[in-house]
Amino acid sequence: MSLQLTILGCHSATPRVNAFPTAQYLEINNRHFLIDCGEGTQSRMRKYKVGFSKINHIFISHLHGDHFFGLIGLISTFGILNREKDLHIYGPVGIKEITVLQLKLSKSWTKFNIIFHELNSKESELIFEDDKVEVRTIPLDHRVYTNGYLFTEKPKPRRLNIDKIKLYDEIDVCDYHNLKAGKDFQLSSGEIISNSELTLAPSAPKSFAFCSDTSYKPDIVPIIENVDVLYHEATFLKDREDLCDKTKHSTAEQAAKIAKAANAKKLIIGHYSSRYKNLEDFKEEANTIFDNVELAVAGNRYSNENIPLNVLSTD
Amino acid sequence: MSLQLTILGCHSATPRVNAFPTAQYLEINNRHFLIDCGEGTQSRMRKYKVGFSKINHIFISHLHGDHFFGLIGLISTFGILNREKDLHIYGPVGIKEITVLQLKLSKSWTKFNIIFHELNSKESELIFEDDKVEVRTIPLDHRVYTNGYLFTEKPKPRRLNIDKIKLYDEIDVCDYHNLKAGKDFQLSSGEIISNSELTLAPSAPKSFAFCSDTSYKPDIVPIIENVDVLYHEATFLKDREDLCDKTKHSTAEQAAKIAKAANAKKLIIGHYSSRYKNLEDFKEEANTIFDNVELAVAGNRYSNENIPLNVLSTD
Repeated sequence: MSLQLTILGCHSATPRVNAFPTAQYLEINNRHFLIDCGEGTQSRMRKYKVGFSKINHIFISHLHGDHFFGLIGLISTFGILNREKDLHIYGPVGIKEITVLQLKLSKSWTKFNIIFHELNSKESELIFEDDKVEVRTIPLDHRVYTNGYLFTEKPKPRRLNIDKIKLYDEIDVCDYHNLKAGKDFQLSSGEIISNSELTLAPSAPKSFAFCSDTSYKPDIVPIIENVDVLYHEATFLKDREDLCDKTKHSTAEQAAKIAKAANAKKLIIGHYSSRYKNLEDFKEEANTIFDNVELAVAGNRYSNENIPLNVLSTD
Repeated sequence: MSLQLTILGCHSATPRVNAFPTAQYLEINNRHFLIDCGEGTQSRMRKYKVGFSKINHIFISHLHGDHFFGLIGLISTFGILNREKDLHIYGPVGIKEITVLQLKLSKSWTKFNIIFHELNSKESELIFEDDKVEVRTIPLDHRVYTNGYLFTEKPKPRRLNIDKIKLYDEIDVCDYHNLKAGKDFQLSSGEIISNSELTLAPSAPKSFAFCSDTSYKPDIVPIIENVDVLYHEATFLKDREDLCDKTKHSTAEQAAKIAKAANAKKLIIGHYSSRYKNLEDFKEEANTIFDNVELAVAGNRYSNENIPLNVLSTD
């Protein structure tokens, strides 16, 4: 499985008993990312057994408390756990000043490096890239400067077609690297065997888009086109679309419109306002526009495939 | 009941599942105080039904995360709840800068006033006083500037001895105020009835001392002498007294020595290191020095009297 998302918290505004602010843990192509970090995220990570040492990159969407008040506590805990690895933090300008001030006043300088990647562009930009994954910003429209993030697997190597390869004694294990890279194979006779005869197309790169918090913003569609899994906030139902204008949030219907326009394969919605008691209403509203909708629930795991994953806890 | 303490969190260092950092809610003489505010305190307040609107004064001992990382989240929630009343925050210099910076960057200015009382004295000082209660600092010895806090009821009025008063038809309800204030009563005949014949001595003012975090510091004893309830940190057992020197914390035995020297009526210990699994060992060690010891447990309520209070939750 190449893409797995664990919801650590999915409610808006203040933490309440069994309603935790935004935080998600993404595993994609063997990379591990934390996205947003509301108060209490580290407790949720422990509850849902997210390994602290796996997190090297944290992406903060914006500087409202329900998306980042847990960050300084998590950093402090990394220090107490004697972390040594670099920690990369991506977020709006100001996140460095807040973090450094608190570390300074508590005389809690970390032994590990914290590398801040402060963002201020209003255009989508590539902010992380290695051999497995790349991450781009998705400029959103909220009351403060806000980015979503698009996580995309790098193209994968071609898969060996072992049955075909075995027909040729001359092809050695040492040649597999070139075959995966798409190269043809030349026999000692001079005959060339086409790569397509020896390998299979790689699985398509998977992608995940995180879009919270934002008003309805169709101009993000080209950035997230054909995404496998889209998380889009749905703070309100359309009965209170007036509040969306005022607070710069979205309805479940608007989230579904974005998913449909972007040809997403799956939509996960969350960031529910506490005014709503029955979350199924969000799914029902989104389903009027888009079929494959799941409700974010803390402790649930989601994948790009349509198979149920283990539910860690329903809290 | 004049003094009631609710433990919201009582473990050291990082929040864990069912181990919450320091926060206490004190009700004394009809005043309501929050003492320290580790990450997740607002969730604990909701769980244990502590009324958010009752809190007008928050006392922060020091700027280590496990004692104040929950403050900014609580302030934000006060804002979301449309608080209008002034909020007073007492704590080390720096607490204003941290709070204001986060409110500024999140564009979350509150509609209520926050009055910061920043502390830097190394001597005990009176920092709060009204007609019911006064609060003094208890300078402690930790790795950063730290204060404990002593909460003391103001002397109460004398209590009316109604049976005696009823013997005199001339004494009217209007006279009760003077009687409570200790004045004698003159009959129309000119005869003077001594106040002590008409009233009873008031109940003694109750007091609570909060001492966390600190190394063993006997020179606080004169400040907290005869305190009714002393909360004193006990991070380690004496088997690891070496760690106390290094980290500036106390053992259970040291906490008990302070309680004994101060002639405290009751000692509550907490701030346990996560290295210890059996908290009863802390009580046992403290009991070798001092009898009336209780273990802090999140969700438990304690009073100055030796009667069990309702346990809200044992988590």
